[in-house]
Amino acid sequence: MAKISNGKDNCNGNEKKDSFAIEEFGADRHGLLTKILTDFEDHLTEKAGHCLGYHVNLDLNHLMDLSPLLRFHINNVGDPFKDSSFSMHSKKFEVSVLDWFAQLWEIEKDECWGYVTNGGTEGNLQGLLLGMDCVIIRTLTTGEIDCNDLREKLCLNKDKPAIINLNIGTTFKGGVDNLDLVIKTLEECGFSNDRFYIHCDAALSGLISPFLEQGPMFSFKKPIGSVSVSGHKLLGSSMPCGVLMTKKKYITTISKNVEYLNTLDNTISGSRNGLASIFMWYSLNVKGRLGLQQDVKKCLMNAQYLRDRLKDAGISSMLNEMSFVVVFERPPNPEFIKYWNLSCEGNMTHVIAMPHVTVKILEDFVNDFVRERNIWYRCGRIQPPCLAEEIGTYNCCCSIHGKGSLQNGN
Amino acid sequence: MAKISNGKDNCNGNEKKDSFAIEEFGADRHGLLTKILTDFEDHLTEKAGHCLGYHVNLDLNHLMDLSPLLRFHINNVGDPFKDSSFSMHSKKFEVSVLDWFAQLWEIEKDECWGYVTNGGTEGNLQGLLLGMDCVIIRTLTTGEIDCNDLREKLCLNKDKPAIINLNIGTTFKGGVDNLDLVIKTLEECGFSNDRFYIHCDAALSGLISPFLEQGPMFSFKKPIGSVSVSGHKLLGSSMPCGVLMTKKKYITTISKNVEYLNTLDNTISGSRNGLASIFMWYSLNVKGRLGLQQDVKKCLMNAQYLRDRLKDAGISSMLNEMSFVVVFERPPNPEFIKYWNLSCEGNMTHVIAMPHVTVKILEDFVNDFVRERNIWYRCGRIQPPCLAEEIGTYNCCCSIHGKGSLQNGN
Repeated sequence: MAKISNGKDNCNGNEKKDSFAIEEFGADRHGLLTKILTDFEDHLTEKAGHCLGYHVNLDLNHLMDLSPLLRFHINNVGDPFKDSSFSMHSKKFEVSVLDWFAQLWEIEKDECWGYVTNGGTEGNLQGLLLGMDCVIIRTLTTGEIDCNDLREKLCLNKDKPAIINLNIGTTFKGGVDNLDLVIKTLEECGFSNDRFYIHCDAALSGLISPFLEQGPMFSFKKPIGSVSVSGHKLLGSSMPCGVLMTKKKYITTISKNVEYLNTLDNTISGSRNGLASIFMWYSLNVKGRLGLQQDVKKCLMNAQYLRDRLKDAGISSMLNEMSFVVVFERPPNPEFIKYWNLSCEGNMTHVIAMPHVTVKILEDFVNDFVRERNIWYRCGRIQPPCLAEEIGTYNCCCSIHGKGSLQNGN
Repeated sequence: MAKISNGKDNCNGNEKKDSFAIEEFGADRHGLLTKILTDFEDHLTEKAGHCLGYHVNLDLNHLMDLSPLLRFHINNVGDPFKDSSFSMHSKKFEVSVLDWFAQLWEIEKDECWGYVTNGGTEGNLQGLLLGMDCVIIRTLTTGEIDCNDLREKLCLNKDKPAIINLNIGTTFKGGVDNLDLVIKTLEECGFSNDRFYIHCDAALSGLISPFLEQGPMFSFKKPIGSVSVSGHKLLGSSMPCGVLMTKKKYITTISKNVEYLNTLDNTISGSRNGLASIFMWYSLNVKGRLGLQQDVKKCLMNAQYLRDRLKDAGISSMLNEMSFVVVFERPPNPEFIKYWNLSCEGNMTHVIAMPHVTVKILEDFVNDFVRERNIWYRCGRIQPPCLAEEIGTYNCCCSIHGKGSLQNGN
């Protein structure tokens, strides 16, 4: 596991101290600041080379073109569709980004409202507002909503309208809720269109969905109320950002006019990051629909490649349809998890085949995993965990459910 | 008013269309994108030269040094004091920024908790949480809290604990609530320390307060619970950002562990902008306490200069003690307001003497205002509005309360 030790050595310079104290520097302040920043860039470059466990695209070199904008404060305070009296804003870029998503999600420009957010969570908060009674619905092994459980809970709450938070791509398993089946369940339980509101949390898959051969997973042509997508996931951005989009008729109820800014205050935060809109606008332009489609195709293929390599090696693993997220058994070594920047839940971990993750990186990863696994489990003398409950018996390679030994595929 | 026409002509290129449609470009996509961005930079540069009405520092050239960081996605998800398993974060910079503010606001490092926010509003939401019963307290002419009204309202609500949102520098008038008087009022009404919580909204003045000759307006040595300050106001940043700081004992109640990220989720948004911490860290280092002190001194002097010039010209105006915000009569011409990027409330407007606002700009502004005012009010044959109620009779120059004519000082 030589790479892991190297990785730790390379970034130690940034991990010895908890912080870079401000004002401890003497005469050569500027030289010291430059040194800290250059070291930090090296640290980030090193980390990016083996960052597998998160839904972020790290291929961002083109965003350096936006450097000249760093000398401005750009603040899109308030409603994106109203000019605010603070003139240093980028709302034209923001509206362009929203127009692009309106077309993608099949809603007429004059029927929709939305804004560029700081990330998915803010969009979800806005989409669902706050402080409501909450009922949790069970999920299937794939991670998607269990519509039988939904039906039961709906029947118990027929007196109230239903606000439903759907996941179009869950974080951990990449599970996609079946929108058509949810709507059918609502109708069968007697909830008419005016008595339910569906918010789609499409953090990652919002930009995958339109480029699938099977057609998109959701659109405003179906009775949904709002969608939230992250800009720093598939598309990629130097900072967290995203888009929230809803139908105009919903937003008018929570808007209030703020005279001070001569604009409408209907977003969670007053001041908003104007750079985020430009970053999204630029990346959408540089890539275009064709580039995104190619990214999606490549990522789907790479995820399948990884799943196949893991299965060949007798490692319990699962890949949902139309997903980049390969779920498999959790490595028992924290150093290994840290080096490959994996994230874990219970017995599971996952690798997300984002655009910066090449076949070469995946090969290195599988080779490292198989080699280390032989040491962890003493060449099969210790049993790796059973993952049947988490990912299904079909995907489990343990001694009970699996077909082969640890050495399969080696 | 030649400048106003010029300003409009210069930026028209960016205002003719509502958006920059994505994917309408042909072969020379990159050239067109560069052209749009270069035009937008020119537009921002032009606007920055006469942007007077907002609390943002537009002197940001030094932030171009951070350009190399744009090629990374830096995301400080979750608690700043816990390493998260997503490795591309800048929490060391964030903690350095927090340490700096802990010292500034007189709280021991191991007693405080906080994070770098996307701006003041997010900090205020977090500081006060959501969904509480709300009682509005009246203000004095200066904009600060009326402690007699506070006393009355406290007496009516003795059965409940009090959560108080104090303004250390109101947006419109720069009014500063008297913290000592508020605490005294609470005590006199029978509210012991464990039955009140004070949040200080110190968006602008949080960074002015420590550098005043009279000593700071607040600190954690007094019984306050949390403070929120903006990073893009006095300090300056390419994007909205800020700091929220509270006592550790308060945050533990709302924290919950998210295994997926191996960190604590106790901020409003999950993902957070890692660039913001580096931008604040860099500016604090480049300026240092001495630089900020010099900025505060310069801005206070420039605000006084503007107030004096307006008074000399017979224009109703007010400047609170230790404030950069000069409040005066609202110009009746929307074009004038737009050109100087003023913000208005009722009969009032204000100019904020931020670091990028030089004496030369203020001179140009006063000359333009006085010249145009003679036209608007036909050399005194029409009366400008009386502002006695808004800013006090002493500050009002109207025909009833004022001493001179419009021509004073010309």
